[in-house]
Amino acid sequence: MAGNYLGDIFRVTTFGESHGTGIGAVVDGCPAGLEISVEKIQKDLDRRRPGQSHITTQRKESDTVQILSGVFNNRTLGTPIALFIPNEDQRSKDYDHIEDAFRPSHADYTYQIKYGIRDHRGGGRSSARATAALVAAGSIAKQLIAEFSLLVGAFVTQVGNLKIEKLLHHTEADLAKLISEAENNIVRCPDQHVAAQMIDLIEQVRKEGDTVGGVITCVIKNCPVGLGDPLFGKLQSDLAKAMFSINAVHGFEYGSGFDGASKRGSENNDEFYSDRDKIMTRTNNSGGIQGGISNGMDIYFRVAFKPVATIIKAQESVNEKGESVELKGRGRHDPCVVPRAVPIVEAGAAVVLADHLLRNRSSKL
Amino acid sequence: MAGNYLGDIFRVTTFGESHGTGIGAVVDGCPAGLEISVEKIQKDLDRRRPGQSHITTQRKESDTVQILSGVFNNRTLGTPIALFIPNEDQRSKDYDHIEDAFRPSHADYTYQIKYGIRDHRGGGRSSARATAALVAAGSIAKQLIAEFSLLVGAFVTQVGNLKIEKLLHHTEADLAKLISEAENNIVRCPDQHVAAQMIDLIEQVRKEGDTVGGVITCVIKNCPVGLGDPLFGKLQSDLAKAMFSINAVHGFEYGSGFDGASKRGSENNDEFYSDRDKIMTRTNNSGGIQGGISNGMDIYFRVAFKPVATIIKAQESVNEKGESVELKGRGRHDPCVVPRAVPIVEAGAAVVLADHLLRNRSSKL
Amino acid sequence: MAGNYLGDIFRVTTFGESHGTGIGAVVDGCPAGLEISVEKIQKDLDRRRPGQSHITTQRKESDTVQILSGVFNNRTLGTPIALFIPNEDQRSKDYDHIEDAFRPSHADYTYQIKYGIRDHRGGGRSSARATAALVAAGSIAKQLIAEFSLLVGAFVTQVGNLKIEKLLHHTEADLAKLISEAENNIVRCPDQHVAAQMIDLIEQVRKEGDTVGGVITCVIKNCPVGLGDPLFGKLQSDLAKAMFSINAVHGFEYGSGFDGASKRGSENNDEFYSDRDKIMTRTNNSGGIQGGISNGMDIYFRVAFKPVATIIKAQESVNEKGESVELKGRGRHDPCVVPRAVPIVEAGAAVVLADHLLRNRSSKL
Amino acid sequence: MAGNYLGDIFRVTTFGESHGTGIGAVVDGCPAGLEISVEKIQKDLDRRRPGQSHITTQRKESDTVQILSGVFNNRTLGTPIALFIPNEDQRSKDYDHIEDAFRPSHADYTYQIKYGIRDHRGGGRSSARATAALVAAGSIAKQLIAEFSLLVGAFVTQVGNLKIEKLLHHTEADLAKLISEAENNIVRCPDQHVAAQMIDLIEQVRKEGDTVGGVITCVIKNCPVGLGDPLFGKLQSDLAKAMFSINAVHGFEYGSGFDGASKRGSENNDEFYSDRDKIMTRTNNSGGIQGGISNGMDIYFRVAFKPVATIIKAQESVNEKGESVELKGRGRHDPCVVPRAVPIVEAGAAVVLADHLLRNRSSKL
Repeated sequence: MAGNYLGDIFRVTTFGESHGTGIGAVVDGCPAGLEISVEKIQKDLDRRRPGQSHITTQRKESDTVQILSGVFNNRTLGTPIALFIPNEDQRSKDYDHIEDAFRPSHADYTYQIKYGIRDHRGGGRSSARATAALVAAGSIAKQLIAEFSLLVGAFVTQVGNLKIEKLLHHTEADLAKLISEAENNIVRCPDQHVAAQMIDLIEQVRKEGDTVGGVITCVIKNCPVGLGDPLFGKLQSDLAKAMFSINAVHGFEYGSGFDGASKRGSENNDEFYSDRDKIMTRTNNSGGIQGGISNGMDIYFRVAFKPVATIIKAQESVNEKGESVELKGRGRHDPCVVPRAVPIVEAGAAVVLADHLLRNRSSKL
Repeated sequence: MAGNYLGDIFRVTTFGESHGTGIGAVVDGCPAGLEISVEKIQKDLDRRRPGQSHITTQRKESDTVQILSGVFNNRTLGTPIALFIPNEDQRSKDYDHIEDAFRPSHADYTYQIKYGIRDHRGGGRSSARATAALVAAGSIAKQLIAEFSLLVGAFVTQVGNLKIEKLLHHTEADLAKLISEAENNIVRCPDQHVAAQMIDLIEQVRKEGDTVGGVITCVIKNCPVGLGDPLFGKLQSDLAKAMFSINAVHGFEYGSGFDGASKRGSENNDEFYSDRDKIMTRTNNSGGIQGGISNGMDIYFRVAFKPVATIIKAQESVNEKGESVELKGRGRHDPCVVPRAVPIVEAGAAVVLADHLLRNRSSKL
Repeated sequence: MAGNYLGDIFRVTTFGESHGTGIGAVVDGCPAGLEISVEKIQKDLDRRRPGQSHITTQRKESDTVQILSGVFNNRTLGTPIALFIPNEDQRSKDYDHIEDAFRPSHADYTYQIKYGIRDHRGGGRSSARATAALVAAGSIAKQLIAEFSLLVGAFVTQVGNLKIEKLLHHTEADLAKLISEAENNIVRCPDQHVAAQMIDLIEQVRKEGDTVGGVITCVIKNCPVGLGDPLFGKLQSDLAKAMFSINAVHGFEYGSGFDGASKRGSENNDEFYSDRDKIMTRTNNSGGIQGGISNGMDIYFRVAFKPVATIIKAQESVNEKGESVELKGRGRHDPCVVPRAVPIVEAGAAVVLADHLLRNRSSKL
Repeated sequence: MAGNYLGDIFRVTTFGESHGTGIGAVVDGCPAGLEISVEKIQKDLDRRRPGQSHITTQRKESDTVQILSGVFNNRTLGTPIALFIPNEDQRSKDYDHIEDAFRPSHADYTYQIKYGIRDHRGGGRSSARATAALVAAGSIAKQLIAEFSLLVGAFVTQVGNLKIEKLLHHTEADLAKLISEAENNIVRCPDQHVAAQMIDLIEQVRKEGDTVGGVITCVIKNCPVGLGDPLFGKLQSDLAKAMFSINAVHGFEYGSGFDGASKRGSENNDEFYSDRDKIMTRTNNSGGIQGGISNGMDIYFRVAFKPVATIIKAQESVNEKGESVELKGRGRHDPCVVPRAVPIVEAGAAVVLADHLLRNRSSKL
């Protein structure tokens, strides 16, 4: 009920503030017997880690994950898996100026009014640092769904006005190749040419003391038919919920998405055909989901991120007394969030898929 | 867990198939003492009702709601409120041809594989008829939040390529006026000129045996500061989840949405100011939500609907044996779903707001 | 959250007041493909039905169940199964005297203060009539678990001071025989001699205008090893929760129960042995559950019911203004609740087992 | 869903194995602004701590609690409170003999079959050590409900055949005095004379290499009218569920409990009267709960514990291959669990009360 969990059977509960002791998660409901690779968890955390390149925030965190419970001889016990990532490089003094003032387009004001108290240091719980817990838990989810051949991969397809073509609509894109291409550059865009432009843009934006938004595309391969629980646990409903829990996300679409609004049924419908006992669709405007249930085709969706709210230039704001103040961004922050958000998107998707994979075990007698 | 409920404290569980006995909902967790107007519920159902105009399906349903429990002397008892809407005008024979074949871009195939059985008549549970239960329950949610001055209103802003300008970004739009304007025409668009074009387009599409998509915009006025439960119960997360539970929805964005991806922080940030003890923002690219919590400004979001999948022209498909078949749409259906989806969007939003209004009662000591 | 549901995957949500339109339930999460016998549901309802013998209340209800959704060609669709039982024989005038007064040891006072409003007619939602919905839903649960060979049976083992020996501690009791013996008499006690004495006692108590308590024993046969989710979803935790939701229940024990408190470990422990590849215990003081998980032996528990609160003799009480009043029982009521509570206990147990049977599908990879 | 949480709004999720890194809990949903005393948490942990006296296990654990998140300047933030208690004194070698054998009346067998894997060291997750997390979380719940004047106190009322009179039925017992009397001796029985006998009995049982069961009585004072959510979230349902989650618990009764089964309505009913605007009952056989809702009188209940399963004398058992083996208790263990279980019972009750205190905020408009 209190909102810090995701998933029903495979349930992730997260905790932690940006400048507190650390960040963590409890994964309850992971089936017993799964082999866990700490290295894989660490690798996903490294992809989200601050300071990984010159286009990210320079906060230095090793983000070293500890497994506190639930794993024995490298296998899950079926008991809760507690994960903990200590905070190491807080500079809380950087936030003294907002102890009683509200940064524009941040959560300072809403937290203060909702709770009557807030940890202003680094944004406290509202910091994107909290997503490290989701990445760690999501990595366990990835290892679970990989046992059933499911793959989740995300990459950057837009930064500011720079976009790559939607890759996936009607073609059988090679996910593994896209992922590997995307990981070849620091902005995580599978098109190296556009990637270079994006990096330039982000550098320029940073020099201006400004920030810029972007879009991440995520693809899920080898999803079996049947995941998703109509009416209110539709696969797209739970994917959207997970994505909107990520800081700065303002839009989500799957399949033909917003473009579908201007289409005719005759162009948008996906005709079925049968190929060697496998039923498939000629096109995939459904984005791999029909009636809230996966249909076996690639699932793909796009997630829009607004520009990071912390900017260097002075902005008008108010303090707790309602008095006018002028604020300039201090603290270390990202000029563009999408390169580091790629593993977060994957993690959220993996948790939803792990959960629905288990939920679907009860759909039939 | 099984997915037929929405909300945690204010919880709506729905049931019913398109050609079964009827459609219904149980609302558990509605506070006691709320005066219930059956007329208001009926009015919302009438806005969703098939056959309400010449641009909707011609299935004839009075959609008369019965309250089976939970209300005594017109007031809620704090006990579950059961709502039931009998089905009246099923023509199940219209669906004989799909008893063992799968309509393109419908849920026939995924239901069959997931459950091993399906009620093919009118699409069974996957029919948009199931949303009548949400509308009835949502009307109770509306009556609850109205006690706290919250208003929810939705209207059509796009049909095919016909759009009206985004009305709400930086202006204090008059919601009551927009709603009343939208209800003045059968397509529910607040711009009468564009509305007339939209109606023409839908009529033309229908004549062609085709369908067309659209977009609905929803606005919430007078939302208090503080609704939404980070991290995974953010207000936008739960709104998105509710919207994606509605048939045909393929996209959701709030505030600056997908446009925000191409913006700079300096253009997108909403500066705070204080006006007579009320803290407000100069712009509202945040869409009334910051850090997952309402900030007191108007909440607004856009919902994209794909074109209805049932079309008259012949389409390639397969049957349960995997054999090729050709299918033509039979059964009665809408050429464009958005005019009737307006009260469904409002209902989903109202349930989420009612739930978070109650959830927020525990945020502070 | 609002408390009207039982179960997580197999979830039963109930509704209805004693003198309203009717009583019902929505069963969400029942796997698809289960053959449903309406006759079996009706038979369980008949065992709970008022007026079934001269030792029960004389309210006349046929308790005819209607299935409103979720079943197609006698099989479950995997969609919510809505059940409805119309009320037929309300005599609301019998309750005029308590419209603003509180019956001793009833829920009139607590409902009034909690909700600020109550349906006083027949006790409204607090009436034992609400258990009819659980019995109907529980009957579906019974049909589900029977597919996996599980059997649930309950019978009366105490009325007032009349008890039969605990039948089940260390012996392999024949459940089918006990059940059939118990159904041979109107008090549902498997010992015909004690049953006759119990019937006499209940008749005498009724003549005195008084009521009397009792105990029901429930046994579950053929439960597979592995049901129950430590730590807080232990099988005994969920069975206890279900039992205490039944009106008048004041005690629950399983296995050696309260007697175990005075025992030594050396007498209470159940030694393991192996018999033709099956691991069993020599004794069964564990009641078939170890560490919150079923161990394959018979599960058995005892449920204590207080005497029904409605009695004919005058009692002191207060009204809503806090003024002293004298109340005498009117309305029709049972002199002893346990004969009719037998199918309710079975229903509660069956729902818990059905839920855990499905939950256990995710315990291993 | 996975069973490691307790509570809906005030939700405690626990983790940890007996011989792993440590034991912990995440408390989600605690309202913001509550002053937290770490000393009080530690004091409750000390009451549960092993090695606290010569009648408990001699495992040496300081059980020092760490708060990892959710508290800032000694006040709750409204964000998840993570608690961690490192393990210090594991002697895992003591458990080598049960690496592939099942101790009688322990959870070794059921865990092995359910999960296909288990941490045999100290019983892993099934160890009573896991209750330390509940005690820590429960201490926060106690601090929350104390803000609303609620008090929870438990004490030992039976060890083996030694009992003290039920103290609480019809008298206004002085809870503070009982608690303080109980804390004056190591068995935590408020009657010093009986306490001395109990201590002697436990010492004798220990010398015999045996164990003995007992009963704990718990009382809740100053509970407001209105806590509890019928039908399946009744206050007694949730209290019972919490109690049966505690290791070794085999029975629960509240109010007149099992004794009520042999009573007449005329003896058992609690007549209402009014005293200076406060409505009370002359007797309290209802145990402070009517219709599942607190009525403002003292809530009291009794919890039966079976004798600890680990005994020194040799017992017959089987190993994973189903072969006969003889096992003797090794590892350190308690001869009687009830002295250390007193704070666990209080913790479980406090979590349930904290949860229902918050849930009740939504019962009325």
